[in-house]
Amino acid sequence: MAAPSSQSCTALERSIRERVPTLLTDLYQFTMAYAYWRSGRHNEPAVFELFFRDNPFGGGFSLFSGMHDCLLFLRSFRFTDEDVEYLRSVLPPATDPAFFLFLRELDCSGVTLHSVPEGTVVFARVPLMEVSGPLAVVQLLETSLLCLVNYASLVCSNAARFRLAAGSRRKLLEMGLRRAQGPDGGLTASRYTYVGGFDMTSNVQAGFLFGIPVAGTMAHSYVTSFSSLEEVWPQVSLSAPVSNGDHDNIDLISLTKGWLGRVCELLGAESGKIHEGELAAFLSYAIAYPHNFLPVIDSYSVTCSGLLNFCAVALSLFELDYSPLGVRLDSGDLCRQSVEVRHVFRLCSEQFSIPAFQSLLIVGTNNISEYSMAELNKKENEIDVVGVGTHLVTCTRQPSLGCVYKLVEVRGSPRMKFSEDPEKSTVPGRKAVYRMLDTEGEESLSTIEKHIESLNYRISVPSTYYFNTQLITQPLCSTAETREKVQSSIQTLHPRHKRLQEPDSYIVSFKVHLLCGDMEQCQGLDCLGYWIERHLTCCHSHPAFLQCKCTHLYTHTYIL
Amino acid sequence: MAAPSSQSCTALERSIRERVPTLLTDLYQFTMAYAYWRSGRHNEPAVFELFFRDNPFGGGFSLFSGMHDCLLFLRSFRFTDEDVEYLRSVLPPATDPAFFLFLRELDCSGVTLHSVPEGTVVFARVPLMEVSGPLAVVQLLETSLLCLVNYASLVCSNAARFRLAAGSRRKLLEMGLRRAQGPDGGLTASRYTYVGGFDMTSNVQAGFLFGIPVAGTMAHSYVTSFSSLEEVWPQVSLSAPVSNGDHDNIDLISLTKGWLGRVCELLGAESGKIHEGELAAFLSYAIAYPHNFLPVIDSYSVTCSGLLNFCAVALSLFELDYSPLGVRLDSGDLCRQSVEVRHVFRLCSEQFSIPAFQSLLIVGTNNISEYSMAELNKKENEIDVVGVGTHLVTCTRQPSLGCVYKLVEVRGSPRMKFSEDPEKSTVPGRKAVYRMLDTEGEESLSTIEKHIESLNYRISVPSTYYFNTQLITQPLCSTAETREKVQSSIQTLHPRHKRLQEPDSYIVSFKVHLLCGDMEQCQGLDCLGYWIERHLTCCHSHPAFLQCKCTHLYTHTYIL
Repeated sequence: MAAPSSQSCTALERSIRERVPTLLTDLYQFTMAYAYWRSGRHNEPAVFELFFRDNPFGGGFSLFSGMHDCLLFLRSFRFTDEDVEYLRSVLPPATDPAFFLFLRELDCSGVTLHSVPEGTVVFARVPLMEVSGPLAVVQLLETSLLCLVNYASLVCSNAARFRLAAGSRRKLLEMGLRRAQGPDGGLTASRYTYVGGFDMTSNVQAGFLFGIPVAGTMAHSYVTSFSSLEEVWPQVSLSAPVSNGDHDNIDLISLTKGWLGRVCELLGAESGKIHEGELAAFLSYAIAYPHNFLPVIDSYSVTCSGLLNFCAVALSLFELDYSPLGVRLDSGDLCRQSVEVRHVFRLCSEQFSIPAFQSLLIVGTNNISEYSMAELNKKENEIDVVGVGTHLVTCTRQPSLGCVYKLVEVRGSPRMKFSEDPEKSTVPGRKAVYRMLDTEGEESLSTIEKHIESLNYRISVPSTYYFNTQLITQPLCSTAETREKVQSSIQTLHPRHKRLQEPDSYIVSFKVHLLCGDMEQCQGLDCLGYWIERHLTCCHSHPAFLQCKCTHLYTHTYIL
Repeated sequence: MAAPSSQSCTALERSIRERVPTLLTDLYQFTMAYAYWRSGRHNEPAVFELFFRDNPFGGGFSLFSGMHDCLLFLRSFRFTDEDVEYLRSVLPPATDPAFFLFLRELDCSGVTLHSVPEGTVVFARVPLMEVSGPLAVVQLLETSLLCLVNYASLVCSNAARFRLAAGSRRKLLEMGLRRAQGPDGGLTASRYTYVGGFDMTSNVQAGFLFGIPVAGTMAHSYVTSFSSLEEVWPQVSLSAPVSNGDHDNIDLISLTKGWLGRVCELLGAESGKIHEGELAAFLSYAIAYPHNFLPVIDSYSVTCSGLLNFCAVALSLFELDYSPLGVRLDSGDLCRQSVEVRHVFRLCSEQFSIPAFQSLLIVGTNNISEYSMAELNKKENEIDVVGVGTHLVTCTRQPSLGCVYKLVEVRGSPRMKFSEDPEKSTVPGRKAVYRMLDTEGEESLSTIEKHIESLNYRISVPSTYYFNTQLITQPLCSTAETREKVQSSIQTLHPRHKRLQEPDSYIVSFKVHLLCGDMEQCQGLDCLGYWIERHLTCCHSHPAFLQCKCTHLYTHTYIL
């Protein structure tokens, strides 16, 4: 594992430009930007909010990720001549040529981003980011910011659920690159599943870019590529790392054949069913990596071949003072097999007086879902490390978080959308977001009767990330630091909100303070009046509901 | 729409290097490559096959995509000094330094790729690509090739299902960028949903890179950003495009207010509920793009505001000899609303003698799934264009195709894996793949009793793509050409195999011809013997099962 160097940080920033070119957005952002520009409104100050409408996976919370990439994207936001030429070819011919000069000069120097910190626990309908700046520019940012936050937050939340299901003891390996939505999907998955609580990834580029520990030893193809012991080379090999500096060359094949006989005898196994090619593969790997021997043992048959071959090679390594690591199981009933494998490890440990043998690692990988991960805690098993691919990176149970980016204010006046679907209506106006914990921290959260839980992120205070005029006023955390933040943020949640199935809802209160201006500015308040009216019918029976103090000041608290 | 220029083709090739760096693979590919190298086997000729085990989405077929990206990846496959330095830091310290020199020199000049053509109908368990070359190199390619094929094929197949569900008449717009697995997931989705049968994308970068038609006009934020008619500018604007060259400036606001009064009268609508900001937004957009007017009309209320405002602006445009395009509905019951909208269009058409008004486009976008797309064909509706995002790009119903890459031959000798899960066992040996159609084409496929359907792809013949020593012997198709190929390939399937629910299985026959060599080469045949033996128990009652002619020649046909 390598820590991310400053070189790889630069690589990260460069990669944003390559991964998220400024044209990677929806066409209508440009047609709207033109219409704003055409009516002279492109520089009007506007505010958008980014949020999601439901906690993912039927759970009680989500994690917020992807914000650092958004910052890098904002910093590098520019149109090239080539971009502008392409836009000229796809926008309607009536488009005023001066608009393209305007685009060529655009950057995000007028944009301010307020955000909850990367890696924090968040809830449905809470504004995660507030993006303010010139109307045309903040409009243009919509799709790219959503694209960067949506999947990152989803897969991070999914990983956190796998971690909750697995408990803190087991090591978790992400290995989903081959099943992800293309190369960048795979890279994003490796990065944010680590942030969400995984320990390692199989993805080398993710290790290179983000300093995530990488792991992996062999696939079935390696095992099946060998067919006989004649393929083991060098035939006489593997010096024992003896302390006196002597390097006696050992005939490892003979040594292992001897051990294999003793293992078969111990276990009453038939040597006729043992696959010679598999033994050759294990031996070759052990010669290459005597300190890192962890083969996959189900290419032919765990009990009739793979386990026996493993024990023989591992015993040879122990005899030569190396320490093998363990085995991987990749098919069948992992729990049952892991128990059988551990039983054999214990027998060998006792029979051959090698204490370390009984605690060799057992790695399980076989289409693990959140459900099967949770089952591991209910059924007897001896699995130390779990590798997860498809269900983790594709988020099978809910493959989209559904983040949206909605206009809430223009020129200081709140805006909202109604929609034919009530749940698609938006809450107008800028918001401050808090999460209140009393001094007792997590403990107090269980006393819901005494405390109102609301959100503790106070956006627009100096302790949060903030982007303006090309300056990021808070240092960005490394991937590992964000990962720690995630775990401590999850700690602040009461277990009843963390239950994977049917969690208690975390109550998000909404308090609206708005001073009505004169009639010229009243459009947003008209909306708000309507919105409150619509919600009052649901909320009027709630004790927290307060009557507004005067005609122009709404002060209501209700449950979303 | 721009055709992909040679410039953007180069951009595509460059982008592969950026999107799929050579380190974007699983660590175990390197540990295995080292073990092969250490035992002197890295240059042994080996063959891998890439396939999937089940047709996706419970359907009867899949489409094969991503192969062109694989070719570009193979062509650019190299390790940089920086890559090698990173690998040195993560591979075990025992790794021989000479191995890193070996890596630094690697390329794919010794690799041959046989493949079914991009964009062809394929079925479960059929080898889609055969990758042969030096063992260590073809092993190293596994994860990257899978990553490039898995999602591309899945989302292309998903798009083809949406197209089948929609019928050929409706236009389909992909708009999933914001919900995809990060930026590259979004780009891949736009590219391969177009290939799979969509007509347009909202994704501008996809238009730029692949020449896909791009579309889109406005979001709700555009509408809600306006609050009064005073924001319309210029207030006196929009010359009628009169043929004699005169450009009388028209007071569009007054003109539209007049039309709005007549529309309200016609429909018996209350003018008091009409949102002035929405009218301002529509007018501003119409001034910007008088030839491309297609607003979203449900930001407040379709029937009380959006539809009335649209009709008023559209009537003004018609009066000035422009042709508005239509409306977009983004919430609620799209079918019901589209019928209401069409009804109003017809009334306006008759009342104001504008024939074109009744056939204005109605675009529907509201979390469309394959199911709701299919419902559109059952319920009365007037939707001409459907926009699909989340369910299309995330492939909600089955977010992974589950492609695998398995070793089938080393040094001319077949290899297989057994696994504890029988369905994970592999079929050893290289395969030729055919799909047989008689001269009647599609028709003959219905006569399953008379014809055995097998696969028509003959890999390793000149008509397929082929990669060797840096030369691609077949020209690569453009995205649009591949899209046409997809539709004609789907045409070869009988409708009963294309049913979205419970299709008839397409029968894939498997014929094994293997001449057994002497005992030294027999490992693969041992496996095969076992494999056949295992399958004989299932297949011996099948009439197609044939007895082998002699001890050493297996000639069996059975159903997988």
